[in-house]
Amino acid sequence: MNANIVDAAKAMSPQLKALRRDFHRYPEQGWMEFRTASLVAERLSQLGFSVQLGQAVVSECARMGVPDAQTLDEALARARTQGAIERWLPALEGGFTGVVGTLDTQRPGPTQAFRFDLDALPIVESTEDHHRPYQEGFHSLNQGSMHACGHDGHATIGLGMAELLCQFSSQLCGKIKLIFQPAEEGVRGAQSMVEAGVVDDVDRLVATHLGLGHASGRVICAADGFLATTKLDAHFSGKAAHAGGQPEVGQNALLAAAQAALGLHAIAPHSQGPARINVGQLHAGSGRNIIADSALLRLETRGATADINSYMESRAFEVLKGAAAMQGVSVSIQRMGAASACAASPALVEKVVSCLTDYPGINQLVGYDVTPAGSEDATSLMERVIARGGQATYMIFGADLAAGHHHHCFDFDESMMPLALGALMQIALSP
Amino acid sequence: MNANIVDAAKAMSPQLKALRRDFHRYPEQGWMEFRTASLVAERLSQLGFSVQLGQAVVSECARMGVPDAQTLDEALARARTQGAIERWLPALEGGFTGVVGTLDTQRPGPTQAFRFDLDALPIVESTEDHHRPYQEGFHSLNQGSMHACGHDGHATIGLGMAELLCQFSSQLCGKIKLIFQPAEEGVRGAQSMVEAGVVDDVDRLVATHLGLGHASGRVICAADGFLATTKLDAHFSGKAAHAGGQPEVGQNALLAAAQAALGLHAIAPHSQGPARINVGQLHAGSGRNIIADSALLRLETRGATADINSYMESRAFEVLKGAAAMQGVSVSIQRMGAASACAASPALVEKVVSCLTDYPGINQLVGYDVTPAGSEDATSLMERVIARGGQATYMIFGADLAAGHHHHCFDFDESMMPLALGALMQIALSP
Amino acid sequence: MNANIVDAAKAMSPQLKALRRDFHRYPEQGWMEFRTASLVAERLSQLGFSVQLGQAVVSECARMGVPDAQTLDEALARARTQGAIERWLPALEGGFTGVVGTLDTQRPGPTQAFRFDLDALPIVESTEDHHRPYQEGFHSLNQGSMHACGHDGHATIGLGMAELLCQFSSQLCGKIKLIFQPAEEGVRGAQSMVEAGVVDDVDRLVATHLGLGHASGRVICAADGFLATTKLDAHFSGKAAHAGGQPEVGQNALLAAAQAALGLHAIAPHSQGPARINVGQLHAGSGRNIIADSALLRLETRGATADINSYMESRAFEVLKGAAAMQGVSVSIQRMGAASACAASPALVEKVVSCLTDYPGINQLVGYDVTPAGSEDATSLMERVIARGGQATYMIFGADLAAGHHHHCFDFDESMMPLALGALMQIALSP
Amino acid sequence: MNANIVDAAKAMSPQLKALRRDFHRYPEQGWMEFRTASLVAERLSQLGFSVQLGQAVVSECARMGVPDAQTLDEALARARTQGAIERWLPALEGGFTGVVGTLDTQRPGPTQAFRFDLDALPIVESTEDHHRPYQEGFHSLNQGSMHACGHDGHATIGLGMAELLCQFSSQLCGKIKLIFQPAEEGVRGAQSMVEAGVVDDVDRLVATHLGLGHASGRVICAADGFLATTKLDAHFSGKAAHAGGQPEVGQNALLAAAQAALGLHAIAPHSQGPARINVGQLHAGSGRNIIADSALLRLETRGATADINSYMESRAFEVLKGAAAMQGVSVSIQRMGAASACAASPALVEKVVSCLTDYPGINQLVGYDVTPAGSEDATSLMERVIARGGQATYMIFGADLAAGHHHHCFDFDESMMPLALGALMQIALSP
Repeated sequence: MNANIVDAAKAMSPQLKALRRDFHRYPEQGWMEFRTASLVAERLSQLGFSVQLGQAVVSECARMGVPDAQTLDEALARARTQGAIERWLPALEGGFTGVVGTLDTQRPGPTQAFRFDLDALPIVESTEDHHRPYQEGFHSLNQGSMHACGHDGHATIGLGMAELLCQFSSQLCGKIKLIFQPAEEGVRGAQSMVEAGVVDDVDRLVATHLGLGHASGRVICAADGFLATTKLDAHFSGKAAHAGGQPEVGQNALLAAAQAALGLHAIAPHSQGPARINVGQLHAGSGRNIIADSALLRLETRGATADINSYMESRAFEVLKGAAAMQGVSVSIQRMGAASACAASPALVEKVVSCLTDYPGINQLVGYDVTPAGSEDATSLMERVIARGGQATYMIFGADLAAGHHHHCFDFDESMMPLALGALMQIALSP
Repeated sequence: MNANIVDAAKAMSPQLKALRRDFHRYPEQGWMEFRTASLVAERLSQLGFSVQLGQAVVSECARMGVPDAQTLDEALARARTQGAIERWLPALEGGFTGVVGTLDTQRPGPTQAFRFDLDALPIVESTEDHHRPYQEGFHSLNQGSMHACGHDGHATIGLGMAELLCQFSSQLCGKIKLIFQPAEEGVRGAQSMVEAGVVDDVDRLVATHLGLGHASGRVICAADGFLATTKLDAHFSGKAAHAGGQPEVGQNALLAAAQAALGLHAIAPHSQGPARINVGQLHAGSGRNIIADSALLRLETRGATADINSYMESRAFEVLKGAAAMQGVSVSIQRMGAASACAASPALVEKVVSCLTDYPGINQLVGYDVTPAGSEDATSLMERVIARGGQATYMIFGADLAAGHHHHCFDFDESMMPLALGALMQIALSP
Repeated sequence: MNANIVDAAKAMSPQLKALRRDFHRYPEQGWMEFRTASLVAERLSQLGFSVQLGQAVVSECARMGVPDAQTLDEALARARTQGAIERWLPALEGGFTGVVGTLDTQRPGPTQAFRFDLDALPIVESTEDHHRPYQEGFHSLNQGSMHACGHDGHATIGLGMAELLCQFSSQLCGKIKLIFQPAEEGVRGAQSMVEAGVVDDVDRLVATHLGLGHASGRVICAADGFLATTKLDAHFSGKAAHAGGQPEVGQNALLAAAQAALGLHAIAPHSQGPARINVGQLHAGSGRNIIADSALLRLETRGATADINSYMESRAFEVLKGAAAMQGVSVSIQRMGAASACAASPALVEKVVSCLTDYPGINQLVGYDVTPAGSEDATSLMERVIARGGQATYMIFGADLAAGHHHHCFDFDESMMPLALGALMQIALSP
Repeated sequence: MNANIVDAAKAMSPQLKALRRDFHRYPEQGWMEFRTASLVAERLSQLGFSVQLGQAVVSECARMGVPDAQTLDEALARARTQGAIERWLPALEGGFTGVVGTLDTQRPGPTQAFRFDLDALPIVESTEDHHRPYQEGFHSLNQGSMHACGHDGHATIGLGMAELLCQFSSQLCGKIKLIFQPAEEGVRGAQSMVEAGVVDDVDRLVATHLGLGHASGRVICAADGFLATTKLDAHFSGKAAHAGGQPEVGQNALLAAAQAALGLHAIAPHSQGPARINVGQLHAGSGRNIIADSALLRLETRGATADINSYMESRAFEVLKGAAAMQGVSVSIQRMGAASACAASPALVEKVVSCLTDYPGINQLVGYDVTPAGSEDATSLMERVIARGGQATYMIFGADLAAGHHHHCFDFDESMMPLALGALMQIALSP
């Protein structure tokens, strides 16, 4: 336990709070974190980090669920009016909103990476009196977007860490990479950083999240319950016809979608662990008396392992294509997001546990937690690190919440930010 | 052949054109024909007709597919800014936009009725250069509404008829009722006038339509091919649940809707004539990873006879309720419109044919046309008249079109208005 | 009206009755009419007809719904024990049970053909006291087979006609072909005779049926209401798996069949006339806890015209293949029968009407009857004749019935056989 | 370790083998174990056990999946020809084929129960040369029935145990109940013995099975992976109609069954553990051109716990009833079998482990095995014992197999019978 770190982190509390509230005020959804990413890049640069961003850290063809060009342009224009740092914008333009800062200590040692996510959600933030961000005047200024998952806190902790890494650089060895990832919501962004090679040289990767149902003071060293997942959009295209006058001419996309929905939910389960599928949305047709020529299904598959999820996904493709064929319509299927399921590396978990034992403020230190907790695309980064011989884990820093994640009254205990910061620094300082 | 009528009708051409273009400029959708109906009532009143309107001619509980209160209020407010006649509005308020004008000749004779419809469609009118209404400056000023079916022409012919009836009143006997019906689109309005007793005293009813695929100069004395129809909206309500975390908790409205869609299209046909069903729209769910707690199906049934349509409709109810039960969700089903199939009265058709033989400008006079031509709720009025011992028919006055009915470039040959007017007057004058 | 014919036909009554009862006693189902066909061939040969049979008149590859080899062999063996004429059997073996007898008058004139069908149904005949065949001792001796459609009568009339044609041969001209067709039930046989060229030289074809809901004494000269039809068997093959232990390994043929059944019944109707589809049977799976690896659908399509039926059939193929693809199973589809819809030739109908006017015993002579009356594969023969420039019609000789066609108590008024015989002779004698 | 027991059990090898082969030769399916049960009762009686059988140990209303009366009668008649002991048959008649033998030592002590099952499977046994039962002449003489699961071995061990219990009675205390259960296949029989109160006085229950994928010499003291299950038959009854002529008259049971099959497979999984459903068989309809008026679904639900299985079962009922309602048909649902999931009692497992440590021939002694191993209705007996304060476990005595359970070449290593017998005796002797 390095007590100086504990104190230094605590001392940053006001600064962290201010930064988090700034991010909270200007939430930006996935692939549109222009302001946020430019501020991150600017600060990393000021602190002497080597900064990479844009297509250097985000592989174009591996991005998923990217908004259309007009939406991206509008978001960029808005960022410019909200204090984005102009010199970084050209690299980010078009939705390449990842940033990586590297501190090379020039001393031998491992390459450690810490991953933080940047994006907000498509939620209208509460303006109820009891909602602290509204009450204290830092609620979202971007109508329809909200940091309702704590990523504002994650980005803040990441920049706080950049600060302390500089301050304690003499005690560090090897390299430290701070990875600021776009578009975690919908598990759309991590794979593009994987494909860009961002973690190919990483020996140890620690990803983190605040809250997730754990109380302030509780720290999970290895959240192992994430399910592998794939998000798919299926567009059926048929042929419209007047249902009364020429029914035989139509190619019914609505019926294809209905057949598909049933077939998808009827995919057989898997003997090796939980498997899930959900068609969450179905929108088809334009008029009551017209045979529907288009239909959209939004669905997701999940599995306890990547293999189980692959099974579900490949069966889903069969079902979608077969249902289209039944009605003589075409179907195009897009992957809108994907994440793996990745078990933490035992050696790293052990190390984390030993680093944090007796850390002040952590009143419950948990090794493994396997409660299924939805999906997270940090797993894709973890998987790559481990595949190349490194170690990885996913930590949760408990934080009391005003309302659940993705709720329009979401808010978290800000005092957990300096705790998380100090804890991550302990790990960084323990090669 | 009364040549004076022919000439008088022709002489009204400029006036008819101007009136039609005024109506075209201010299209109002079903149950919101506040401006149109008030102008009709005003003119009928000025001409000495006894005028009934509002709930006197529109039965509240028999209305179908009425917009919500706010939409109605906004439409009324708009009408006030567009020249509606204030003194009639209180009676029309809330969507009771029917008007009936009666001319009692005080001479013995039958009660003859002529029916015209008033409403526009939810279509954005073309602003392409070749579109005459745009070119000549009388296109819709109400964005999103358009007279794309010719009802502006119908209302115009009706008022023209009021004009000439007065002019030729000395040659008339019995009573003449001019029925201006709201909400024909979606077959929502006629039944409410039936229930209000509007045609209970009618001996002969003639309903009319312009165009419908017939060229200028062609007149159909009895369009007998309408299909009985019912328009239904089915709302499924279930229970949302996180699809990954607690799938067993959900009650899946999307799957209920999908099962229903298949079941509806699989309803067995009918041996006694064409039967149709179409689920034209299906909208379900809110998020990819949430079990959908709501779904909406918009559908219609049709049948060559009222019995066949009843068969389809009652089967549809079974399917919808069974599908809801399968998923443990509830369903509420609203009738959004309905029309019957009604054969014309041979004696009246014969009379119409004999009235119009040799009418100048009619180059093809057709007795019966049984080509299926969609559905029309004038059939409900016809059915009532015939049920009470009267006679009824549905006439089509062919008119060259710029584009098909319900197309955003729809426009019709205005010179057919005076022809139709004169022809109807011939009938009115032949007791 | 040739009165001699009327008398000669009437005089054959006892003989016709005896022959019909013999056929009734030994019913043989489609492609297994070994005894029946051999007796027909023998008699035609004795009378001096030129006889063709077996593969000369039945095209192997155009046969549909042929039983398996063992079933055929057993039927042949049985026929041998029931009086089949041995010398004709080699040609018939394997299910080539059609016979054609030709009488060439050597005088110039048209080639006229008359078609009779031979096969029985898979029905257990009634042994109730009131059932005349049982009462009078001529009920089926072949358990599970029964002449419950009157084909025993048709074959009898055909042989009676051979008899009279010889008797009156001096008054005939051209050629007369008597076509004895196998496997009409399930519309399996006609196409194979078409493909063998049996009617390629025919100028006029008359097909006949007894009964069909018409009373004794009523004769229909042109039954024009037959629907085109196709009979399909679809076999789905998947992969079995223990449903509890390894569900993901299975390929579920039962679900494919269920999806298909719904999709088939949901095929859109056709604007040009009645269209029908029915999945009459579905058999899938072997054990409750095993994912079903096989499924069989038995279905039929129908249409008012051959085009409408083709539409239904091609859509059915799409649905079946798509449903298989949805479940990752294979499907093989066999055509088990097919018939066309064919309108009678007006000139021939007129001729028939004029031949039969005043025929004694015909108390109601009807030209055209368009009541839909199921399907009949004589239409395929008619279609070919007309396609090659000839004329064709389908006649119904009304006959009072003890119970409906295909009922286990079916029986018909035998006195209509001489009437039908005489009527057909009138036609044959009127070149 | 009581070495005398080990030797005594081993000494019984020839006797056990002979008895097992006798049972193997005369397999009797569930509720028809007339010969088997009578032989069991006779031997227990000879040995001085108090014998209960028939309705005293089988509750009539709790039986599931009982064959029809004729099938039962035929089986009884066959048993009489195959050496059944006449004096026990009246009590067994009608399918009450359970037997319980009780040995009361008159010394204080717990009541221990051991459960064995009696029934065979509907499988045609192999007559291939390599199949030992065939080779050595003890294959099934009852065509279509086969001991392909080892219950012949279980019954044999049970009677062997009766033998040794007498021999070693002076060393026993309390009471020993030997429970011979009918109809385990399809999990049909246990509940009827539970309802008859057979285990209400039991302090410790040990159920056993041979094989189940474990090699000879491996013994599982607590097989805890059984899934709760319910077996359902659903009969849909609709109304037949000619599909071409009067489709609207039908009530389509086939479509109801198809809708149900899809809906059943689409039942949402459960967050608390594996859940399964399978429609293993679907049989519907009688003719290709007839709207099917009947359909049968054979299905099963499973769950890791009784609650999960209940969830699946109650959802299945909703789906079946809703699907019937969709088509206007009725459905009747029968429970054909049911079993619970029951965890073993730790104290008893511990005792068993300590009894069997160092037992000669057991080369792998396993405490708990949680591999899902299908379903077993002994769980229902266990559940009742535990609910009343007793202890229970389910043991597996590994045995090399010639082919898997339920395979027509199934056979097991007979040398494991004396081992199992000795092991169970060790337990019985350790109060």
